[in-house]
Amino acid sequence: MSFEDLWPGLLPVGRARGGGYRRFSWTEADRECRAWFAQEAVRRGLTLERDRNGNLVAWWDTSADGDSGAPGDEGRADDGRRPDLLDDVGGGRRDAVLTGSHLDSVPDGGAYDGPLGVVSALAAIDLMRERGVTPSRPLGVAVFTEEEGARFGVACLGSRLMTGAIDPDRARGLRDGDGVSWADAIAAEGYDPGAIGPDPAFLGRVGCFVELHVEQGRVLDAPVGVGSAIWPHGRWRFDFTGQGNHAGTTLLGDRRDPMLPFARTVLAAREAAERYDAVATMGKVRVTPNGVNAIPSEVRAWLDTRAPDDAAVRATVAAIAAVAEEAAGWHGVDVGLSEESYTEVVDFHVDLRDRLVKTLGGAPVLPTGAGHDAGILSAHVPTAMLFVRNPTGVSHAPEEYAEPADCRAGAEALAAVLTDLACR
Amino acid sequence: MSFEDLWPGLLPVGRARGGGYRRFSWTEADRECRAWFAQEAVRRGLTLERDRNGNLVAWWDTSADGDSGAPGDEGRADDGRRPDLLDDVGGGRRDAVLTGSHLDSVPDGGAYDGPLGVVSALAAIDLMRERGVTPSRPLGVAVFTEEEGARFGVACLGSRLMTGAIDPDRARGLRDGDGVSWADAIAAEGYDPGAIGPDPAFLGRVGCFVELHVEQGRVLDAPVGVGSAIWPHGRWRFDFTGQGNHAGTTLLGDRRDPMLPFARTVLAAREAAERYDAVATMGKVRVTPNGVNAIPSEVRAWLDTRAPDDAAVRATVAAIAAVAEEAAGWHGVDVGLSEESYTEVVDFHVDLRDRLVKTLGGAPVLPTGAGHDAGILSAHVPTAMLFVRNPTGVSHAPEEYAEPADCRAGAEALAAVLTDLACR
Repeated sequence: MSFEDLWPGLLPVGRARGGGYRRFSWTEADRECRAWFAQEAVRRGLTLERDRNGNLVAWWDTSADGDSGAPGDEGRADDGRRPDLLDDVGGGRRDAVLTGSHLDSVPDGGAYDGPLGVVSALAAIDLMRERGVTPSRPLGVAVFTEEEGARFGVACLGSRLMTGAIDPDRARGLRDGDGVSWADAIAAEGYDPGAIGPDPAFLGRVGCFVELHVEQGRVLDAPVGVGSAIWPHGRWRFDFTGQGNHAGTTLLGDRRDPMLPFARTVLAAREAAERYDAVATMGKVRVTPNGVNAIPSEVRAWLDTRAPDDAAVRATVAAIAAVAEEAAGWHGVDVGLSEESYTEVVDFHVDLRDRLVKTLGGAPVLPTGAGHDAGILSAHVPTAMLFVRNPTGVSHAPEEYAEPADCRAGAEALAAVLTDLACR
Repeated sequence: MSFEDLWPGLLPVGRARGGGYRRFSWTEADRECRAWFAQEAVRRGLTLERDRNGNLVAWWDTSADGDSGAPGDEGRADDGRRPDLLDDVGGGRRDAVLTGSHLDSVPDGGAYDGPLGVVSALAAIDLMRERGVTPSRPLGVAVFTEEEGARFGVACLGSRLMTGAIDPDRARGLRDGDGVSWADAIAAEGYDPGAIGPDPAFLGRVGCFVELHVEQGRVLDAPVGVGSAIWPHGRWRFDFTGQGNHAGTTLLGDRRDPMLPFARTVLAAREAAERYDAVATMGKVRVTPNGVNAIPSEVRAWLDTRAPDDAAVRATVAAIAAVAEEAAGWHGVDVGLSEESYTEVVDFHVDLRDRLVKTLGGAPVLPTGAGHDAGILSAHVPTAMLFVRNPTGVSHAPEEYAEPADCRAGAEALAAVLTDLACR
């Protein structure tokens, strides 16, 4: 099947009236996405593996031993060191080639962020078969769970669990907006919450990981590019605490209105980002009590900051925090700042990156400001990314788009890369 | 019973863990408040009247005809003109004296805003009886419904319906946050939604209305004051529409982030209020999609503005709107402004005000920036207000407070005023 034949099967799933997607982990939309993936795997004779952490992998295994299933026994446990590309480690075999991405979405997200990587992987397998390519290494298509962190708040949760980048106890206790824990949510789907956590046996089988993803900015001006790095990025929370009061009767001089230093901080984020060549966004805010005629008692707001290097991120956040404190002081408001997460710069595997560029006969190399499962896996497995052009740069919104011709080019590029990597 | 004996019966009802009150119309807390009021009315031999609009009145009627119930037949329909104080209109009797306030609350509101007027009215009746005072006019204690507009969005809904200040069709269609309509909510309580609307027969019986209320600013520096006016006030909604996008990958120059002009508008509201001696508050905001890693697609925010005169309100709003439009333009964001409500200045009845001051042997006279049912009724009935000192000026918040001695002084003042008005 071609890319165009595959794409429509997934398009209607979890689509809200406004055109955006709400594919949150372990909801009905997520179940439909997983069912679609399982059906497409079966149709191709791939073997579906459901790991302990909620991730799925469909294996095309044509290895000499004739086992068409997952490459289970011959793997060697991940020993924590960053291995060389597709190496043979002490007689064990770290030889599988992994691709794939995720199917979950942000609230009212676009169609491409995640699914494009999964659909392109299946389309690439179809292209390889049409051309008579038979891989000599196991080739897996992964669907990582809760990549967006839209329901439980931690991005790349599935790959973090697999690699040990998050403590299983913390993951079990993560709660969605209704108070449902990750443990309860996966138990309801038949998983054992006690069994989640690092999976060195799986990682030990993987020789490399290549994730294809729609570009999320407007940097890429070619159909397909190769990723060089993921910018360091983090989330910070500001808690502005003032005095709730009546909007009509409280004189200006008597006010301790936390909305005012919050507003000043929003503007400071933009100013600091410009100064340090970073990006800084305050896109989430929670006001208490959030009444028209009530001066708020508290404004809680989140800051997302990213930049090419750690120093720029730190300088940006420090500049914003200084303004927040000063403005809070002016208005008699208390302010607290806490770092909710921080991810250092990820440099993708240089040899693998160069090999992709060579296979594609040359391609633009670009970094990204977005986090990906590839960023998590890269600490354990040689990892690379392919980006498909985004003509408007819109992402995490219903208008997210990629031209069909660029999507076809992405699937072709992935087929070429997988052919190179999976055929000895 | 004294003020102190009455107060504890109401204190626990609808109180949230944080100490604030959530007494929203037609919820369990509201039912408990109404049951408490009915019980206190019965205990005093008052006759409880439930009007068509969800308001309650407990009548102490010792008129010559021996009817201890509500003064129903002898009234004359309200003819729309603002009558003189306690006049006899064309042979009919517009002779009842009405007091009272409301029992509903804003989200996490204080204990005093509303209930103080109801409790003080009952305490005043007890004081009058202790002193052997027998009114020669019917004396009613009113509990108006949905004064805060916290559940259905329109403040003073009960008194607006009674006076025809809101179209019954609009009221029936008002919806709470869960989509429940006013019509359905009152039908579930046994009211006929088709029967709501202007009640000239009721208004035609009322000679004057005196509402006691906790002061909501820090203007009053005596135990009890008399109201002169309610500032003109209104609510405006700003709709900032940008382009939702990825917080990590969208370059600053590609952004159309509606949070930025919103923030500038919050600061402009404070600046304009200072310039025009007004108050302006942006206490409610709704961000779409409100995700940490998403540039918002839309920010909807509400502005509450009040000032001593209409011109100052209009100038303040115009100045804020100009900044909003300019800032939106800078950021490629569209902005819409709509006036959701506007209430012109209310000057309370001058003769009644002076009579109260005289009865109290002198008292500070002050305006208020807060809306009240008294402001709605004043277009139809001679109306006055008594304010009880608020030592910190905090209102619409759990910390709202009045000293017990000041509350006692308020009940004494109300008893004196009602004795003067209700005894020919």
